[in-house]
Amino acid sequence: MPYQLHYWPGIQGRGEFVRLALEAAGAPYVDVARGSAAEGQGLPALLHHLQDTSTARPSFACPVLVDGKKVIGQTAAILLYLGPRLKLVGASEADRLWAHQIQLTIADAVDEAHNTHHPVGTGLYYEDQKPEALRAAKGFRVQRIPKYLGWLETVLAQPWRGNQHLVGARLSYADLSLFQLVAGLLYAFPKATKRALKKTPLVLALHDRVAQHARVAAYLRSERRIPFNEDGIFRHYPELDG
Amino acid sequence: MPYQLHYWPGIQGRGEFVRLALEAAGAPYVDVARGSAAEGQGLPALLHHLQDTSTARPSFACPVLVDGKKVIGQTAAILLYLGPRLKLVGASEADRLWAHQIQLTIADAVDEAHNTHHPVGTGLYYEDQKPEALRAAKGFRVQRIPKYLGWLETVLAQPWRGNQHLVGARLSYADLSLFQLVAGLLYAFPKATKRALKKTPLVLALHDRVAQHARVAAYLRSERRIPFNEDGIFRHYPELDG
Repeated sequence: MPYQLHYWPGIQGRGEFVRLALEAAGAPYVDVARGSAAEGQGLPALLHHLQDTSTARPSFACPVLVDGKKVIGQTAAILLYLGPRLKLVGASEADRLWAHQIQLTIADAVDEAHNTHHPVGTGLYYEDQKPEALRAAKGFRVQRIPKYLGWLETVLAQPWRGNQHLVGARLSYADLSLFQLVAGLLYAFPKATKRALKKTPLVLALHDRVAQHARVAAYLRSERRIPFNEDGIFRHYPELDG
Repeated sequence: MPYQLHYWPGIQGRGEFVRLALEAAGAPYVDVARGSAAEGQGLPALLHHLQDTSTARPSFACPVLVDGKKVIGQTAAILLYLGPRLKLVGASEADRLWAHQIQLTIADAVDEAHNTHHPVGTGLYYEDQKPEALRAAKGFRVQRIPKYLGWLETVLAQPWRGNQHLVGARLSYADLSLFQLVAGLLYAFPKATKRALKKTPLVLALHDRVAQHARVAAYLRSERRIPFNEDGIFRHYPELDG
């Protein structure tokens, strides 16, 4: 049975980290909310998972992954579950924890990127918190983007690692998530991110390598890849870049 | 060898979720940064873990747990590692993932609580972002506290669960983290949190039960429990409550 991914149909968002793992592994999956409501898919199926309080283990938010009878929420927990099954992480506990630690750190960076356009609250529109966003984005551009990319560079720069992957000698979901973080930052803050990437050539090279991975490249060209847009986490508001 | 916990010495912060797990299990540990620099502890030992770029797998931030040769960063990853070792989670993969999913959701609530006093940026003082904080706190009080506590209540309300624990029939680290979240919210936003807790009696009861757990109660009375204060994540600024 294919995996079912439940995520908002119009954005990459946090669901994209799961989509990339499934796509890179060539795993069969249904992106439920993008399907037809007439076929039991679409937004109603997603909302069922979020609103049905009789579910034994309800998720607070999406993405939610359904694998047979198993229902898992939280992006990092989903990747923790999928990693070994999709062969996107090594077999040892140490490698699995390290991949997870990187994923959680990338998730922190993603949260901060979201906070730049919604510093005051997710319940308000960007237009209602623009002065605050201008201030928040400055700190993110000047301090946080270089700090996060610099940390990933330090990880890749370990001499015994071959500088190719964040975990072990093969592609892991942490590499895919690095790609998505860099792609998102390049979309939202092209000037600041290009400036930071000049000091993190290994991060840029890994981003480029992931983009050329056969299955990932096919996915990125397909209609399954939702374009970045201003409803998602990474939004290009030119006034926030610089 | 005792576990080593590396975390900022003056605050509960995210390290407190790890401290509570170690304390509740009666596990031997050293809270390194609170020790004496003369004995190789104190802040220098903590900074070593954060700044030594020759470390094979450096952490982006603390808390960091050291267990022999293993070094693990990110609060949720540390609890994922410690949970089975401290018998603070069941043996099945499903229980471990569910405890982890709850932990990650509580971590999201903690991030949002922090954001109320630092909406514009962690690099600025509260006093420099007070108008923004007033706006951010309102949404957090009115919408987010009830939503997070309501979700935890829904989880506890499952009839087959006995309403005592979030995962399985025994105390897990998810229960400890619920306690810490509620304790923190009660400190920072006493009015709003008490109002929300009236609608989530199972959450309040679990918080109270954890506080009475013999080892946890002894810890809370000890000097090892750093009092809440205005350098931590949960800060009591009366103007942000209401």
